[in-house]
Amino acid sequence: MNRNDALEVLEAHLPKKRYDHSIRVTNTAIQLAGRYGVAKEQTEMAAIFHDYAKFRSKDELKRWITHTHLPKDLLFYHHQLWHGPVGAILIEREQGIKDPAIQAAIHCHTTGKKDMSPLELILYVADYIEPGRSFPGLDEVREMANKDLVKTAWMISRNTIHYLMEKNQPIYPDTFHAYNDLTKKISGGNS
Amino acid sequence: MNRNDALEVLEAHLPKKRYDHSIRVTNTAIQLAGRYGVAKEQTEMAAIFHDYAKFRSKDELKRWITHTHLPKDLLFYHHQLWHGPVGAILIEREQGIKDPAIQAAIHCHTTGKKDMSPLELILYVADYIEPGRSFPGLDEVREMANKDLVKTAWMISRNTIHYLMEKNQPIYPDTFHAYNDLTKKISGGNS
Repeated sequence: MNRNDALEVLEAHLPKKRYDHSIRVTNTAIQLAGRYGVAKEQTEMAAIFHDYAKFRSKDELKRWITHTHLPKDLLFYHHQLWHGPVGAILIEREQGIKDPAIQAAIHCHTTGKKDMSPLELILYVADYIEPGRSFPGLDEVREMANKDLVKTAWMISRNTIHYLMEKNQPIYPDTFHAYNDLTKKISGGNS
Repeated sequence: MNRNDALEVLEAHLPKKRYDHSIRVTNTAIQLAGRYGVAKEQTEMAAIFHDYAKFRSKDELKRWITHTHLPKDLLFYHHQLWHGPVGAILIEREQGIKDPAIQAAIHCHTTGKKDMSPLELILYVADYIEPGRSFPGLDEVREMANKDLVKTAWMISRNTIHYLMEKNQPIYPDTFHAYNDLTKKISGGNS
């Protein structure tokens, strides 16, 4: 599927505001892919479709999690975490995009996970720093994205945990695993 | 073993400062046990011996973790986390204290864990709030300890994660599990 076809498909699945966000994430991700030497075509497809399932109903998302191989523990956490894993499945079933690297990046784009690939890191970072976002501390993360992809992802995982704890929310285990894994990668051993 | 015998044993294993801390934790824990209806004798033994292994060498602690049933992933985290799990084993091997409830409370007193028992919560809280401690935010936690044991433990798990993230430290999974479990307990469902 080429970029234009992909965008046409996407437009039919998302409201304008979320479609525009997806374009910005795609442009940001392609810039990062250039900087960090990651395949442009995979990055582009992953970014275009990262929120593909975002506007499915909670009931539909829950059905996909229940009836596929997706981890069932998702159901015990906030429903905002469901569209990534479900999107990774739906782009294959509905759009024929069967590329494990793209699907894995879409799967973990909200939570992060241990041992993220460069493509996964790029989508995780691009979704957080795209130019439409604005909140305290973001400039520092954007600056780091020009220098060190792993350190940028580490900052995002840390900020996400802070944010969720401020809101008294539980934290999906993959987010903790992302933080621990990235912490070890940026700082070496620790005992 | 009665209180006096226990304190005599403890004194031989800890420097004065850490011994005094143990006394303060014990007094705090006994107060909490009274307030929350937990057995005084078990609480007292768990509190007296909670830091029993604190001054063993890193090498000795590592050997006990390596050669017993203790979880090996401890070795990938800060050595300050090792004395609880090792202490739980050593009080049985060296002092004949074989009480799974006491040993479990000593095991998890630094990290917390999912589904802590009331005794485990009390030791986790008492170690954090004992009157010798002083740092920002502690008064708020002490106040909560008079009202709600689970909410107090939740505050401690959250503060601990904050503290470790400020220091760019990885976080032992049991600490995350404690936070998530306590968050669910204080706030109910979340999706």
